[in-house]
Amino acid sequence: MTDALSPGQTVGILGGGQLGRMLAVAASRLGLRTHVYDPAPGGPAAQVAQDVTTAGWDDTEALAAFADSVDVVTYEFENIPTDALDVIESKCPIRPSREALRVSQDRLTEKEFLAGLGLGTAPFAAVHDAASLDAALERIGTPAILKTRRFGYDGKGQARIGDPTEAAQALEAMSGAPALLEGFVPFDREISVIAARGLSGDVACFDPGENVHAEGILRTTTVPAALSEARRTDAVLMAARILNALDYVGVMGVELFVTADALLVNEIAPRVHNSGHWTQNGCAVDQFEQHVRAIAGWPLGDGQRHSDVVMENLIGDEVDRVPALSREADTALHLYGKDAARPGRKMGHVNRIRR
Amino acid sequence: MTDALSPGQTVGILGGGQLGRMLAVAASRLGLRTHVYDPAPGGPAAQVAQDVTTAGWDDTEALAAFADSVDVVTYEFENIPTDALDVIESKCPIRPSREALRVSQDRLTEKEFLAGLGLGTAPFAAVHDAASLDAALERIGTPAILKTRRFGYDGKGQARIGDPTEAAQALEAMSGAPALLEGFVPFDREISVIAARGLSGDVACFDPGENVHAEGILRTTTVPAALSEARRTDAVLMAARILNALDYVGVMGVELFVTADALLVNEIAPRVHNSGHWTQNGCAVDQFEQHVRAIAGWPLGDGQRHSDVVMENLIGDEVDRVPALSREADTALHLYGKDAARPGRKMGHVNRIRR
Repeated sequence: MTDALSPGQTVGILGGGQLGRMLAVAASRLGLRTHVYDPAPGGPAAQVAQDVTTAGWDDTEALAAFADSVDVVTYEFENIPTDALDVIESKCPIRPSREALRVSQDRLTEKEFLAGLGLGTAPFAAVHDAASLDAALERIGTPAILKTRRFGYDGKGQARIGDPTEAAQALEAMSGAPALLEGFVPFDREISVIAARGLSGDVACFDPGENVHAEGILRTTTVPAALSEARRTDAVLMAARILNALDYVGVMGVELFVTADALLVNEIAPRVHNSGHWTQNGCAVDQFEQHVRAIAGWPLGDGQRHSDVVMENLIGDEVDRVPALSREADTALHLYGKDAARPGRKMGHVNRIRR
Repeated sequence: MTDALSPGQTVGILGGGQLGRMLAVAASRLGLRTHVYDPAPGGPAAQVAQDVTTAGWDDTEALAAFADSVDVVTYEFENIPTDALDVIESKCPIRPSREALRVSQDRLTEKEFLAGLGLGTAPFAAVHDAASLDAALERIGTPAILKTRRFGYDGKGQARIGDPTEAAQALEAMSGAPALLEGFVPFDREISVIAARGLSGDVACFDPGENVHAEGILRTTTVPAALSEARRTDAVLMAARILNALDYVGVMGVELFVTADALLVNEIAPRVHNSGHWTQNGCAVDQFEQHVRAIAGWPLGDGQRHSDVVMENLIGDEVDRVPALSREADTALHLYGKDAARPGRKMGHVNRIRR
């Protein structure tokens, strides 16, 4: 294991939310230490990490000290300011690489990258003003979705255009930010592949999960997805192709639309992914440990599933269902240590094991 | 869930070793905070807990502050000084109760308790001097094992007596400590039942595991154990009987000898147990979460197994096998964050899932 971290060495994690929390716990199973960097104090990841830095993304001194104290840096969300990454990268490797961040931070760049690989996507066009929106609608038609190019997640920064008369209002919702128009895809189902690539270029994918979203937020993932064997294989090969093209190291979430005659890539996330939480109770090596193994230069788990699983997110006050859920057989609880159950906030999830 | 802890409340853990570490991680999955109390700094549990107190068992002030800061106190080892428990109990409930500690801290008291329940044990007799040892050997015969009544674990504080001429040397090895003589049991196999009892008196047991020891230290646990259905049921019922008799709250490890015609209780441990580590990769709710659920007043998991598992301990420099083990399919690594791999020291374990 050339360049592999040894037990006792430290993984730095940018971001202190639930993904960071579960990464830190997975790292601890491998005997690795973790150091969490987050502007907000006492968040989910800070509660379980050995070391915590609470400082802003513009605090050059804190960023440098953090980078000096760890052996590799990873991140649990995509929108980390470039200047902060510059400071860190001068001292310590960042995995997955910044190229993966650059591609996935911008929806237009991402779509062009995917199209460049010959992978199917929804039809798309860049939008920067009313004229380019009109031209895009002319070509793509309605219904369509206007999205900001950057900083979108869980349905934020998006406006649906049911017919051309709604174009002006949708453009206004972008607040002048660069955007892209995506054509509506009449999909049968949404799936995702949680794929991993190691430091030596080996790739391992978990079985595709079938996702149900509501109001832009993931509600459930079911594994196995209802897919033909050929489609299942195609989905995994498409994900592997993306990771290889980026010379990627770590876990990536690849969301796909399944239509009557194609698999289209919806989006990629260069990190562990909500739709991979089922692996915690379905596999010997879950997506969090898989990510840590990859960025630490360890061999990857093989992604084999020992059990079928249905993952369900607990959003907002759904966390009040925990007393009842804790009585359910074959149900594993995963709560994130957040105090306030605000609407839309991911408070935890359950994995129901199907034997 | 009357008296149940809510997410955000805090479990205090006495002892900072690997059992405390895995308890802390399990508590975090339930959204509970943990506060570890241990005289040694930076141990396995301290690395993953939210709060840590590093202070001695005689530090009354630190013990009181610790007890004031948590909502329930549990422990990961049995030999906590009585005075320390007195300080804590005046401020905060201790679960499992001190009665369970009192019984299991003293091998003679434990044997008498078990015999009083009508449960089979190895023949035993109290030994406090040469005359009582002679009388005990007369009654029990050889081979036999002389053990200190207190502070024994992993084969420490024990001397084998192959024939009566070895009696004096064995007695000397006790260094004047009160002891008991145990007859040798010609057992076919050793098993253990990881049993749990909740605050409302409900009991749930995991399937018996089959244990292999070497030099007094557990090496492997295999689940399911090679047992007839009747024996399996008997073992679980014996464990449940012990927990009920103690009005126990929490997880207990009950070790049994399987002989040609009987099940004999070897010893009980009022805590999570090395032979229950397999549950981490075999059950939706593992022994650590089960213990936290019990002491927090939550419903228990049902103990059902989704996969067969073989657990193997990594002792001392066996931790050097980690690079090779990390390449094995269906093998889950659990390392404890200990820096020095001293001989006999438990550094981690692997759970091999058998599908």
